[in-house]
Amino acid sequence: MTVPSKTLQIRSLVRSSGELELSLQEDAIPRPAANEVVVRVEASPMNPSDLGLLFGAADLRTAKASGTPQRPVVTAAIPEAAMKSMAGRADQSMPVGNEGAGVVVAAGASPQAQALLGKTVAMIGGAMYTQYRCIDVAQTMALPKGATAAEGASSFVNPLTALGMVETMRREGHKALVHTAAASNLGQMLNRICIKDGIPLVNIVRKQEQEDILRAIGAKYVCNATSPTFMQDLTDALAETGATLAFDATGGGKLAGQILNGMEAALLRKATEYSRYGTTTHKQVYIYGGLDRGPTEFTRGFGMSWGMGGWLLFPFLMRIGPEGAEKLKARVAAELKTTFASRYTKEVSMVEALSLGEIAVYSKQATGEKYLLNPSK
Amino acid sequence: MTVPSKTLQIRSLVRSSGELELSLQEDAIPRPAANEVVVRVEASPMNPSDLGLLFGAADLRTAKASGTPQRPVVTAAIPEAAMKSMAGRADQSMPVGNEGAGVVVAAGASPQAQALLGKTVAMIGGAMYTQYRCIDVAQTMALPKGATAAEGASSFVNPLTALGMVETMRREGHKALVHTAAASNLGQMLNRICIKDGIPLVNIVRKQEQEDILRAIGAKYVCNATSPTFMQDLTDALAETGATLAFDATGGGKLAGQILNGMEAALLRKATEYSRYGTTTHKQVYIYGGLDRGPTEFTRGFGMSWGMGGWLLFPFLMRIGPEGAEKLKARVAAELKTTFASRYTKEVSMVEALSLGEIAVYSKQATGEKYLLNPSK
Repeated sequence: MTVPSKTLQIRSLVRSSGELELSLQEDAIPRPAANEVVVRVEASPMNPSDLGLLFGAADLRTAKASGTPQRPVVTAAIPEAAMKSMAGRADQSMPVGNEGAGVVVAAGASPQAQALLGKTVAMIGGAMYTQYRCIDVAQTMALPKGATAAEGASSFVNPLTALGMVETMRREGHKALVHTAAASNLGQMLNRICIKDGIPLVNIVRKQEQEDILRAIGAKYVCNATSPTFMQDLTDALAETGATLAFDATGGGKLAGQILNGMEAALLRKATEYSRYGTTTHKQVYIYGGLDRGPTEFTRGFGMSWGMGGWLLFPFLMRIGPEGAEKLKARVAAELKTTFASRYTKEVSMVEALSLGEIAVYSKQATGEKYLLNPSK
Repeated sequence: MTVPSKTLQIRSLVRSSGELELSLQEDAIPRPAANEVVVRVEASPMNPSDLGLLFGAADLRTAKASGTPQRPVVTAAIPEAAMKSMAGRADQSMPVGNEGAGVVVAAGASPQAQALLGKTVAMIGGAMYTQYRCIDVAQTMALPKGATAAEGASSFVNPLTALGMVETMRREGHKALVHTAAASNLGQMLNRICIKDGIPLVNIVRKQEQEDILRAIGAKYVCNATSPTFMQDLTDALAETGATLAFDATGGGKLAGQILNGMEAALLRKATEYSRYGTTTHKQVYIYGGLDRGPTEFTRGFGMSWGMGGWLLFPFLMRIGPEGAEKLKARVAAELKTTFASRYTKEVSMVEALSLGEIAVYSKQATGEKYLLNPSK
């Protein structure tokens, strides 16, 4: 295998003048160190967390195309109020792409690195929207025989996040889960895990077709947040499952608070004594995404035993330690084509990913509209 | 000492028809069991947590007086929307008053109980708005020689809450504190503790006179939430103190979120690398009161390492165990007339406490307007 000297990659630049610029930039491919490999990236998912970095706080309705067909450039305005949250990355051209998969085309001297030569591996570590990625072996995972790069592209973030939710539930003493934006790729994975492990899961969606997707894969509890009977349906499901832990992908709006209020109402159905501080059972919502960028609002009708907070995969993996993380990764590898299978609506090249037409589709982060980037295409 | 057979006490009744009724009811005084004492209650503070139980969700603008001069009755309407949160206590006549102090007039057979005969004690355990309270010795604390019932009336809730905040800070690995409604009786206590223990404390108030109260007792950081420079002032104070833990008495509104955003902004001043997930330092706000009954609203500009949640004294004491709690109580007894001194604007009898004129004053829970109830008056 020959390795070129340079790699083309997608870059996202937020200018302090208030403009986002997306472009393709050339970078040298480093010679791999002893424990590193160079991977030809063939598949990398475009997840909400990637899009958050790619587009920053830009208003994509203002997006304009320029550049050349081979080197397209997209610019968009960033609302002034949002620039404060962008200060930390201002004027730094940033690579994008949390995870991906591809073929190892060069390897460092270590036996671990050499063993991967020619293998298809999954990778985590950022800067995956690039043709070639030099990476430490520890950040890779050899895919099972016969698995393609596309099949292994989402081996880390979604599978480990879904497993992390279940693991968090066990470690924090809850016995059932609630999940919002539940028909997402991640949500479907979580359903497959919970069905397999016998964990009651309350799915919250916003559309009938999302409910249909989940019912079709065997989900038992699905509540539609836009239904007039939502709070009643949710409380019934919470009472039946005993779920006191939720993972919320939306972040903004009233949903997190509605879940806490539903949990308390479900617990009160069994309460025998009044306390103006509410039930003593701890109710927790972790916000792990921000599909709704608006403010979070809740009415405190759930007593004093509650918590809301951020949840993020990497700090979670740090908390459980390498041994805990390895167990989760082994399960992902073993069930890659079943429990952890991902579906994509379209595979695009880097040039296509920077076209206004495709951006208009995949930036919406609509259910079932997940793109797979193939930087080698 | 003679002990009457009956005690008069304040009762709060929420009728499921949507009406609050406050009245005075007679109850038999039980003969004390071996480890119990009967206390003639001479002082009991009217704290926000007591008023929450006393008034429920009633709209006090609709309050009406009836009954007789010796047995006044107050009724008020409860808005229909609020009745849901009252369901658990509907149609139960409830005694009121978390804590108090008085003289032990009868004692059970145990040496511990007998030793308290004639002594002035502080008590915790509810139903303190009564002339005589029969209570387990374990729920009392003998006051230091020379201390009056009025001086010992607030020996539990505020002192242990303030000490509990500091203890929580230490146990959860923070090094400075933020407190809202900071000029309250509790807030002043917290300032005295923090000054004595050398803990940086950021006080948040809403009025100039509250700032003046705190400056006069030596507070270094006082931020006025109504000032146009509030967020700047707060962020400066947070950057200087390194505070990443806040206790919020207001609950509703935007303050809790502003504190988290201020903490993140303060941390970002020292950050060297951009992460779209924010800083990795955990930022926490505990909501321990509900002075603002409205919804809680926040804009998530503080990354993913954050938490918000309820904090309540009794679960906290359970968590630290009897040994931990005894240490805190010993400190309260030792510093009762200094660090933990409470001030009251007025002492009222039970009949006076049920007059519309007094209710209009003390129900406001304004800074410096704390009433002391003397059921024996």
